[in-house]
Amino acid sequence: MRLHRLKRLFVGTPLPTAQQRHERLGKTTALAVFASDALSSVAYATEEILLVLILAGSVALSYSLPIAVAIAVLIAIVVSSYRQTIHAYPQGGGAYIVSKDNLGTCAGLVAGAALLIDYVLTVAVSVAAGVAAVTSAVPVLFRYRVWLCVAAVVVVAVANLRGIRESGNLVAAPTYLFIGSLGVLLVYGGLGAIFDFIPEAPYPQHPPGLEGVGLFLILRAFSSGCTALTGVEAVSDGVPAFKRPEAQNARVVLTWLGAILITLFLGITVLTYDFGILPRPEETVISQVARHVFGRSAFYYVIQAGTMLILLLAANTSFADFPRLSFFLARDRFIPRQFAAQGDRLVFSNGIVILAGLATLLLVVFGGDTHALIPLYAVGVFLSFTLSQASMVRRWLRLREEGWWWRSWFNGLGALVTGLVMLTIAATKFTHGAWIVVFLIPTLVVMFLSVHRHYEKVAEQLSLEGFAPPPPMTTTVLVLVGDLHRGVIKAIQYAQALSPNAKAVFVETDPERTRKLEEKWRKMGMGVPLIVLTSPYRSLLGPLLEYIDHLQTDENHVVTIVLPEFIPARWWQLGLHNQTALLIKGAMLFRKNVIVTDVPFHLKH
Amino acid sequence: MRLHRLKRLFVGTPLPTAQQRHERLGKTTALAVFASDALSSVAYATEEILLVLILAGSVALSYSLPIAVAIAVLIAIVVSSYRQTIHAYPQGGGAYIVSKDNLGTCAGLVAGAALLIDYVLTVAVSVAAGVAAVTSAVPVLFRYRVWLCVAAVVVVAVANLRGIRESGNLVAAPTYLFIGSLGVLLVYGGLGAIFDFIPEAPYPQHPPGLEGVGLFLILRAFSSGCTALTGVEAVSDGVPAFKRPEAQNARVVLTWLGAILITLFLGITVLTYDFGILPRPEETVISQVARHVFGRSAFYYVIQAGTMLILLLAANTSFADFPRLSFFLARDRFIPRQFAAQGDRLVFSNGIVILAGLATLLLVVFGGDTHALIPLYAVGVFLSFTLSQASMVRRWLRLREEGWWWRSWFNGLGALVTGLVMLTIAATKFTHGAWIVVFLIPTLVVMFLSVHRHYEKVAEQLSLEGFAPPPPMTTTVLVLVGDLHRGVIKAIQYAQALSPNAKAVFVETDPERTRKLEEKWRKMGMGVPLIVLTSPYRSLLGPLLEYIDHLQTDENHVVTIVLPEFIPARWWQLGLHNQTALLIKGAMLFRKNVIVTDVPFHLKH
Repeated sequence: MRLHRLKRLFVGTPLPTAQQRHERLGKTTALAVFASDALSSVAYATEEILLVLILAGSVALSYSLPIAVAIAVLIAIVVSSYRQTIHAYPQGGGAYIVSKDNLGTCAGLVAGAALLIDYVLTVAVSVAAGVAAVTSAVPVLFRYRVWLCVAAVVVVAVANLRGIRESGNLVAAPTYLFIGSLGVLLVYGGLGAIFDFIPEAPYPQHPPGLEGVGLFLILRAFSSGCTALTGVEAVSDGVPAFKRPEAQNARVVLTWLGAILITLFLGITVLTYDFGILPRPEETVISQVARHVFGRSAFYYVIQAGTMLILLLAANTSFADFPRLSFFLARDRFIPRQFAAQGDRLVFSNGIVILAGLATLLLVVFGGDTHALIPLYAVGVFLSFTLSQASMVRRWLRLREEGWWWRSWFNGLGALVTGLVMLTIAATKFTHGAWIVVFLIPTLVVMFLSVHRHYEKVAEQLSLEGFAPPPPMTTTVLVLVGDLHRGVIKAIQYAQALSPNAKAVFVETDPERTRKLEEKWRKMGMGVPLIVLTSPYRSLLGPLLEYIDHLQTDENHVVTIVLPEFIPARWWQLGLHNQTALLIKGAMLFRKNVIVTDVPFHLKH
Repeated sequence: MRLHRLKRLFVGTPLPTAQQRHERLGKTTALAVFASDALSSVAYATEEILLVLILAGSVALSYSLPIAVAIAVLIAIVVSSYRQTIHAYPQGGGAYIVSKDNLGTCAGLVAGAALLIDYVLTVAVSVAAGVAAVTSAVPVLFRYRVWLCVAAVVVVAVANLRGIRESGNLVAAPTYLFIGSLGVLLVYGGLGAIFDFIPEAPYPQHPPGLEGVGLFLILRAFSSGCTALTGVEAVSDGVPAFKRPEAQNARVVLTWLGAILITLFLGITVLTYDFGILPRPEETVISQVARHVFGRSAFYYVIQAGTMLILLLAANTSFADFPRLSFFLARDRFIPRQFAAQGDRLVFSNGIVILAGLATLLLVVFGGDTHALIPLYAVGVFLSFTLSQASMVRRWLRLREEGWWWRSWFNGLGALVTGLVMLTIAATKFTHGAWIVVFLIPTLVVMFLSVHRHYEKVAEQLSLEGFAPPPPMTTTVLVLVGDLHRGVIKAIQYAQALSPNAKAVFVETDPERTRKLEEKWRKMGMGVPLIVLTSPYRSLLGPLLEYIDHLQTDENHVVTIVLPEFIPARWWQLGLHNQTALLIKGAMLFRKNVIVTDVPFHLKH
């Protein structure tokens, strides 16, 4: 009861099913809603490139510019490819559904596994980067970063358990704050660099690095930067949320998103290079750029706040995506069916709780460090990109709708490029953590398939197809007693209510106790016969099981064991009573034709 | 079933109650049985003194000699005092029983709490020191010491769960091996030092210590050395195990024990000083002394093996003492009654498992380091010494038996001295870990009293004194259904066996499902009426509870809820089915007049 009230406090009062409704989004709001995940990666992508290059010394840092250009091209390709997906799936085409439809169940499950992992990592990475934005601005908080991360996950999870119905308006403000403030930074910082009113700084003479500038290092840096692409698929997943004409509006918004993403990412990378900024553990690169341009002014803090807010929004999107994908997987019987159940507040509570738990675990294990989490991140994202684009190619070739040939070229290029990038990431980041994901994805797929097989077999076993109900059941009712007191008397009365032939059974371990019990029974036995079973090994179960076997004469006969059980008034008192009931239930669980019933006796103190 | 076979493998087949018998011990065997705990502390007591003195630099190390002499005097006093206890309690006088008899329940419980803690620490300290003896001889094992400690606890615990019936003979060999090999070391090492065929070495010029040589430091070193006394009470606890005349034999054995303990302890301390041996983290002082005298010869390894074995035996004694004390406390209803139950093999299994668990926890938390555990150890031991001696004084003064006046002087001196030592230990070791014990003892006492109060109140509530059985009970049987399949049909048949008026109840969350269910019901409903309850908030419980309230018309009417439940074939499949049964049972647990029964349906795959 008290637990129940606690739940109400955090989760709110239940909402009736009839309140489920759909909000349709205009283009500007939709951009804000679907852009946060993709744009927020600007907060760490440049830094991740530099963190790899610095291993080869400061001389390698200038490679950040061509790498950023390559990533910008990649963004353009992926965006063009997803524009075709929107055209084909106006009802929303997530990688799981698209792959399952076009490439078969297995491909769908691989995409599903990749996406589930991806969503967990989106929460972990975004929260870690969001907290890094805070601790860059307020350095005293740096040592509490893991706690701040955990607190952020809890806040977002609780908000989602309540159900965020006002998502559109809530999201618009911080997204535009981030775009606007970063835009001002780029323009003012760029002008300052050109007209020399902000000092440019060449990279300091850094000691020569541990590694040479080789192709592998460049590819690793590129792989790190590819995190900039995470989240661009969100628009194509959410087409039905747009105002009419949905597909057209979604395509426009996706193009805007691509343009803004490329601009912000390239701009930050150029300014970082221009100002000679090096990645530092306690301050993010963006914070350093902003501080270089604006000093510790109010506007600097606005930029940091905007960065933090958009990152929390990015984490928040996973709290809608993960439960939604879980729902699809549960509906198709690949994961436990509990994930298909809506909670009191019309949200999929189980998915939210699991996501928050896993993300918290990752944040704690990796010490709330964005850089440590990144190698796990992009593999799953690019795997789902590849499968999703490849599915589209398959679809165009099959259906041959209008424009199929040039559309299939766009998607084919997308699939090829994202596939290559995925392999590059897996190879260059394998030893840094990507191996976890590489092994986890097939493991999850095997689990999905086992669960599916189990549900299918259960359905078969339960089917009423050609089932004739067996003849009526009969039952013998036994009360298992260890003593005679008020609790036992209640149990005996219940047994008598169930059957006029109820018997009491006592397992003897000490003849002295039997004698005392039989004496009490003569006074208060209420007409129920007492059967005494001897137990030379002091075991309760052995003699009882033997007696039950002796009673079970035919298939349709069931033995009912009635157990008197104390229900203490306080939880800690549970340990003070013999858990005989639990023991007996456990032993009887796998025996057919035995049913155990507790009769609770409620203690007052 | 598989679990059951695993248990048999480790624990052995059950023993019938009739096999319980008592082994009587001769003096030499008794010395071996009861000496291990006390003598084994020689393995670390000297080292612990040095580890404190070294804090003040090498100049302070010579204080080890007078400190050791003071401890030897203390041993003599305590032994003389316990000789009187044996006289008064020939049936065995543990501190709990003696204190409870003579000073009242509270004093008894304080002694009981102190002893329980003490037994756990005996296991932890002895195992840590035993493993240190091994890793001193085989240094490559040093890094695995925590694992070795855990393995040792498990081995000893499993041996005790099987019931070690052959204890006398098993114990005699290693104890005499230890006494003998250490004796040879002392004699040969002593002669070597006197006749100069073993090089003496003055203490190396150690850098001046961090602390000055003050009274506090000396007292701390003395406190550390007092661990040498742990276990001397064992003889007086075990008087009934001696051959006749029990008390006299026990007194003789206790005197031998005291003499051997003093000899070994003083001898080791003198040799350590003579050979200029300093405590080192990876090698014990005894190992260094033995190596100094014998080199890495076979005899050196014999000494290390003997040390390890006697320490494991010391740990083993706690596995008899802890469950025995738990039995007394449970019998007197101060701890959960489960501790009073004998297992299959005539041992108190619960006590053994709990002791092993707590000792393992301590070993892991303190990294298997003897020195880290020592500050927790001696407080409890000396507290129980003090209470036990004080009880004896009280007893002599009350009963005035023959020789009461001089016996009470012995016990009074014992109580005074051990009390002072206890306060010294608590004060000097407080910040090093003794505070844990100082706070834990009263906490345990409060717990004992709460448990006792609970059991008393339960007994009152259950009493049949003046209880008239209420009028016969009636019951309504409801089957809660979510669908209609073979599992539900079994539940319906069971409900029909219990009552001809059984009804089925369905909570509607989606009218479409209701329609489908009603259709199935028309075909296969077996004559049971289906009651549909609507649930606008998708809650299962709300509408069900309302309906139950509506059925409960009078005090003696009980509602029986029959739940169809899947029992999967494999454990991992448990998570794949809605745990509705658990939820409903939880919600009904605290409601009077509702009884929940699962009808299991066993899945085949």
